Amino acid sequence: MHRTRVRVVEDALDANNTIARANRDDFDRAGVRVVNLMSAPGAGKTALLESVFRAGLNGVRPGVLEGDVQGSLDADRLAHFHVPVTQINTDGGFGGECHLDANMVRSALAEVPLDEIDLLIVENVGNLVCPAEFGVGEDAKAMVCSVTEGEDKPLKYPLMFRTCGLVIVNKIDLLPHLDYDMDKLRHNIRSVNPDAEIMEVSARTGEGVEGLRNWLVQAADRAAAPA
Amino acid sequence: MHRTRVRVVEDALDANNTIARANRDDFDRAGVRVVNLMSAPGAGKTALLESVFRAGLNGVRPGVLEGDVQGSLDADRLAHFHVPVTQINTDGGFGGECHLDANMVRSALAEVPLDEIDLLIVENVGNLVCPAEFGVGEDAKAMVCSVTEGEDKPLKYPLMFRTCGLVIVNKIDLLPHLDYDMDKLRHNIRSVNPDAEIMEVSARTGEGVEGLRNWLVQAADRAAAPA
Repeated sequence: MHRTRVRVVEDALDANNTIARANRDDFDRAGVRVVNLMSAPGAGKTALLESVFRAGLNGVRPGVLEGDVQGSLDADRLAHFHVPVTQINTDGGFGGECHLDANMVRSALAEVPLDEIDLLIVENVGNLVCPAEFGVGEDAKAMVCSVTEGEDKPLKYPLMFRTCGLVIVNKIDLLPHLDYDMDKLRHNIRSVNPDAEIMEVSARTGEGVEGLRNWLVQAADRAAAPA
Repeated sequence: MHRTRVRVVEDALDANNTIARANRDDFDRAGVRVVNLMSAPGAGKTALLESVFRAGLNGVRPGVLEGDVQGSLDADRLAHFHVPVTQINTDGGFGGECHLDANMVRSALAEVPLDEIDLLIVENVGNLVCPAEFGVGEDAKAMVCSVTEGEDKPLKYPLMFRTCGLVIVNKIDLLPHLDYDMDKLRHNIRSVNPDAEIMEVSARTGEGVEGLRNWLVQAADRAAAPA
């Protein structure tokens, strides 16, 4: 909006990209592939990961980097599955950061057992804006969007939908109780990201979760090739 | 986290507070009371306002300042009710701002017919983090939290719940189809904000919306007293 402000933001994003590349180099050296998983608050990222870990990932060894403003509720839920989980809290004296950035991830890397995992899932802070702007060194970005949020979100938060290769539409078990038009959602996603893969799932009933497990296994398999 | 960073943020919040006070002076002079309405994406702020405007506000003349990263979908919905709606888009060349700040509101004030309204509702960008940090000159902060988001949100986004005098729990029509514990939510809200007023509503069925209408009428009535 204001020219100075835009420059400050551009500088911040440049600095972030530099650190993200350093993260990426470390991930590549360790042969670990990284998925940045994003969504609005309460869309079901953690519930989906619970469902995925319960069924397993076909030999792929996952780890989670858990981003929250405060607390470790999600990390505690995922630790039950004997998956290495590292918590990052973004609160620092004031209200807290609304996203993970490359530097926060870098600061936590010493705690992540990269040699014991094949796939690192970064569960970002629940937010549809800033997480899409700050890469952390990931190989792929994926997002969860709940049917309870309405069909208009791709049009209101276009960058998030544009940057994600995979859009996981969650809570489809609630469709009979909502006035929801799945075709309209798909149309809206396509209008900002024609190439996005779209997956309909329910973390609660397990419907469609196998597709997500396969996607994650394939994301990790790309680690087999040397960087 | 880093000392320089914390200082930068503190300076930004100080500058924001100065502009927020100027906004507040303008609102007071015009005898307009202002409610900053916040929530996660898709919690139902616009649907609730539709429900409120449909039934009316007992003679109180509302206006809306509509904050979105991009587009005017919500403003278009609310314009049907012949309520003056002013759109603020926060995208500015990059991904967009995740919140309204006092300066954005100030820039839009010339478009808001303050002499024709009693109550200005600022519908903030859908986000549970930064909107709580940036006051815009409001008299009251209120938030919508949907039962589909789970009961844990007050613990994960404590500042938002702490700064809001009113927490509107929306989509209670879906409760029969969810594993949701309303007592747990109330307990979690109380743990971060013992004084918050909690209201259970459904924008879809209209249940409980009368309470919200009364609350808004009372918020506007406080404008009768000279500043």
